[in-house]
Amino acid sequence: MTSVEPTAEMHPQRWGDPALAAELPESARGLVELAFGLQDRPAVAGAVPPASALPEPLLDELRDLLGAEHVLTDDATRALRTRGKSTPDLLRARAGDLADAPDAVVRPMGHADVVAVLAWADANRVAVVPFGGGTCVTGGLAARRDGFAGLVSLDLVRMKCLLAVDDVSMTATLEPGLRGPEAEALLAEHGMVLGHYPQSFEHASIGGFAATRSSGQSSAGYGRFDAMVVGLTAATPTGSLDLGSAPANAAGPDLRQLLLGSEGAFGVITSVTVRVRRAPAVTTYEGWRWPSFDAGADAMRTLAQDGLLPTVIRLSDESETAINLADPSSIGGAEDPGCLMVTGYEGTASQVDSRRAAVTAVLTDLGGTPLGTEPGKKWVQGRFHAPYLRDSLLDHGVLVETLETATFWSNRPRLYADVKAALQSSLGEGSLVLCHVSHVYETGCSLYFTVAARQVEDPIAQWQVAKAAASDAMIAAGATITHHHAVGTDHKPWFAQEIGEVGVRILRAVKAELDPSGILNPGVLLP
Amino acid sequence: MTSVEPTAEMHPQRWGDPALAAELPESARGLVELAFGLQDRPAVAGAVPPASALPEPLLDELRDLLGAEHVLTDDATRALRTRGKSTPDLLRARAGDLADAPDAVVRPMGHADVVAVLAWADANRVAVVPFGGGTCVTGGLAARRDGFAGLVSLDLVRMKCLLAVDDVSMTATLEPGLRGPEAEALLAEHGMVLGHYPQSFEHASIGGFAATRSSGQSSAGYGRFDAMVVGLTAATPTGSLDLGSAPANAAGPDLRQLLLGSEGAFGVITSVTVRVRRAPAVTTYEGWRWPSFDAGADAMRTLAQDGLLPTVIRLSDESETAINLADPSSIGGAEDPGCLMVTGYEGTASQVDSRRAAVTAVLTDLGGTPLGTEPGKKWVQGRFHAPYLRDSLLDHGVLVETLETATFWSNRPRLYADVKAALQSSLGEGSLVLCHVSHVYETGCSLYFTVAARQVEDPIAQWQVAKAAASDAMIAAGATITHHHAVGTDHKPWFAQEIGEVGVRILRAVKAELDPSGILNPGVLLP
Repeated sequence: MTSVEPTAEMHPQRWGDPALAAELPESARGLVELAFGLQDRPAVAGAVPPASALPEPLLDELRDLLGAEHVLTDDATRALRTRGKSTPDLLRARAGDLADAPDAVVRPMGHADVVAVLAWADANRVAVVPFGGGTCVTGGLAARRDGFAGLVSLDLVRMKCLLAVDDVSMTATLEPGLRGPEAEALLAEHGMVLGHYPQSFEHASIGGFAATRSSGQSSAGYGRFDAMVVGLTAATPTGSLDLGSAPANAAGPDLRQLLLGSEGAFGVITSVTVRVRRAPAVTTYEGWRWPSFDAGADAMRTLAQDGLLPTVIRLSDESETAINLADPSSIGGAEDPGCLMVTGYEGTASQVDSRRAAVTAVLTDLGGTPLGTEPGKKWVQGRFHAPYLRDSLLDHGVLVETLETATFWSNRPRLYADVKAALQSSLGEGSLVLCHVSHVYETGCSLYFTVAARQVEDPIAQWQVAKAAASDAMIAAGATITHHHAVGTDHKPWFAQEIGEVGVRILRAVKAELDPSGILNPGVLLP
Repeated sequence: MTSVEPTAEMHPQRWGDPALAAELPESARGLVELAFGLQDRPAVAGAVPPASALPEPLLDELRDLLGAEHVLTDDATRALRTRGKSTPDLLRARAGDLADAPDAVVRPMGHADVVAVLAWADANRVAVVPFGGGTCVTGGLAARRDGFAGLVSLDLVRMKCLLAVDDVSMTATLEPGLRGPEAEALLAEHGMVLGHYPQSFEHASIGGFAATRSSGQSSAGYGRFDAMVVGLTAATPTGSLDLGSAPANAAGPDLRQLLLGSEGAFGVITSVTVRVRRAPAVTTYEGWRWPSFDAGADAMRTLAQDGLLPTVIRLSDESETAINLADPSSIGGAEDPGCLMVTGYEGTASQVDSRRAAVTAVLTDLGGTPLGTEPGKKWVQGRFHAPYLRDSLLDHGVLVETLETATFWSNRPRLYADVKAALQSSLGEGSLVLCHVSHVYETGCSLYFTVAARQVEDPIAQWQVAKAAASDAMIAAGATITHHHAVGTDHKPWFAQEIGEVGVRILRAVKAELDPSGILNPGVLLP
């Protein structure tokens, strides 16, 4: 059983490591000014959360359970546990609104502590919001507090152990508080890799990956997080669950798949056992140019259906490709950039060689133009950087946000057109709507949209209108409201449409059984 | 929308197509006599089920719903819907015991008919047992009837349509009553294949595959049935479900995985949308010899963890290999047969060539001896035949039955040893316990045991003691009670141990929500 020291906490109003915050790069400044104008929209400084509403006797009970040093009520700690990192979350925090701050931040150390906190919360009708990395972008950390005596953030920061390693079965048991890089560092000591790299990787946690069904940038090779999980334990107010008797079985419904994606509303995931791989000896990334988004997407489909996926495969549409390539020197260049695809290969040298050769043959045959490793290197360098750029753009009055969906291949063109049109017409002239495919399956793929627009007076309302229009378009197209960002509070109305009335009733019944007092992340997930 | 004519019904006391029933092959007769003696235990002829307990006015309501020709109460039809095809089921039927016969067999035509039957059953407190192929081996078709006005078998025989084909997304939507060969025949018209071939393939149904999380002999290449399902519809007394907005998503828990494996206790699956593949141009099967079961299993693990699985891979232990190879001419042969592995490859010529070359290199390197295609051909010829042989052995007083489990690779040796010991010590001297691995994953594998013993006076009790001992050993080893045979009624006590008290409470809560009157397959699945 090994563990690591925690990574840096994020700023309550910005993404990521505060030491890495940066002004808008000079190269982008001109382009942004041209497109949106440069407004000055600095964050309000010195905002403080409302006073803690939890009475001292209740806090004393918590202190008895966990030790006084693990029950924190100071403003700074509570501010850092307020909401997640969606653009609306940041806009609220930047405006000084910390109204959703928890009354206390509690830090359990292990499953038994979590059980004890839940029992305390259940007895005292206190809402509990499990907190991993704080990177949620769908409102999943902004629980309802009406009807509760208070709200505590259950911070998993002390649960960072690699509990077990099985190098025959190639599984590892991880505690939920481990951030992405921490988990990989512990596994690397055993020559293993998890291979889960969402854009939030540097700050998001193992528990969050499980509770939200995260999918990483290498999903083509390593699979979605839910596909990696072979076992889990969870604490619920009703009791504990310990699931995972085999890689797969026919012993009834797969209850693991009921806890995965439960977003803290059914229980607190206290460990996951995941399939791991040998650390790759070779990693290589390269670029391809496609004449159109359709041509590139069809090539992805061919690879997926031929069983020839690289470890990473992503494709930007024409607009995103143009922006990615945009720098002062390239503007006005004669060549049509088409659509950029990045392919990545990880594994032993022979695995990488043979897969790369097979993929290259297919892509060449389908009309792709190889661009060498330079675009791949550039992508690797910037792969976790976009959220920092968003902060800089928000500073300058540019509204930037993302949303994503998935569908079956035959429906991809319609979904792409409809969501793009909904965003463009909501955000109006001058707005940018970019899209890429970054997760592919034999039967379909994800679509990930990024928008940028000049902020109006109320940018939250501005975004909400666009988000609703895009979400309506997804449901109308029969697609999912979220491929890998989870439901949170933001997606609830569309989630209810997606799973239907009976689906909602099933979730409510499970919730009532596991959390009869409704203390777990109230208002999140369940419509 | 295309459909097919139904296949032949099975005999109520035997497996499979009655036209294919056969006496014990001459080649095996001597061996069987030597090992167990030849008793004469013919099935009782002319057994009839108890009279239908459903009052005529209730039957008239059903006739109004479905048409009189689709509400059957004759003895022959009811006898054919009595229980499944486990050895205890056959022993009871052979003894003339048809006490579990339904009061009526009803044949809905489509989702709306199923909804109507469930509403009728709910209103009249009639138990409903969904019936696909009737191949269950875990008591899943023997529902409780106490407290109910009667019990009807909901025969899906008229729901055999290929409802939709999407050759871009490579998905097909199938009705649940399609038997394996029927589904493949319909898909073959589109150049597609599902690739799901459990031993019950010739008679089992699509709905059954889904409701029991079936796994086929080509699972290494095509995946388990639950992994093929991207969407489904189900009728429940509470309402209908229509799930499957994308290949994968983060929109809450995966409710598809709650209906898959629900064994008719939560609802009736009225269609599934499955991932299909292009029909393979080439199929080839071959044999390998391994010096030991451990060596062969380690080789399977290496292939799985290297991402180099063939389409089919199975490995018999020393005992099973000896029996497979046993024929009068080979007995007393000097050569140690070791352990037989069968590998199969399906796909385009280039896919088969490249995968076969890669696998061959690994297996050769690990000490396997290639045996050419003859053992592969022999396996293909006999792959669906074992249940017919069981009938012949039962005729001669030999108890034959199978059970199966799965675990992680590091636990495989212990699980194998413990279950084998439990079976051998229960069945006593002279009994045979054979085992093979037929489903492999990166993190683990299945173990499938076949036993044969001379029947004692009460062979059902004889088996139950052995089954309980083996099941106890599985749970004690932390393995699953079933990798692909489902829970039914036979596995319930161990299933409860496997998922724990909170797991059972979740299932009960879902059951109460979807089927508040408890009419759906009462007593099946839920402990």
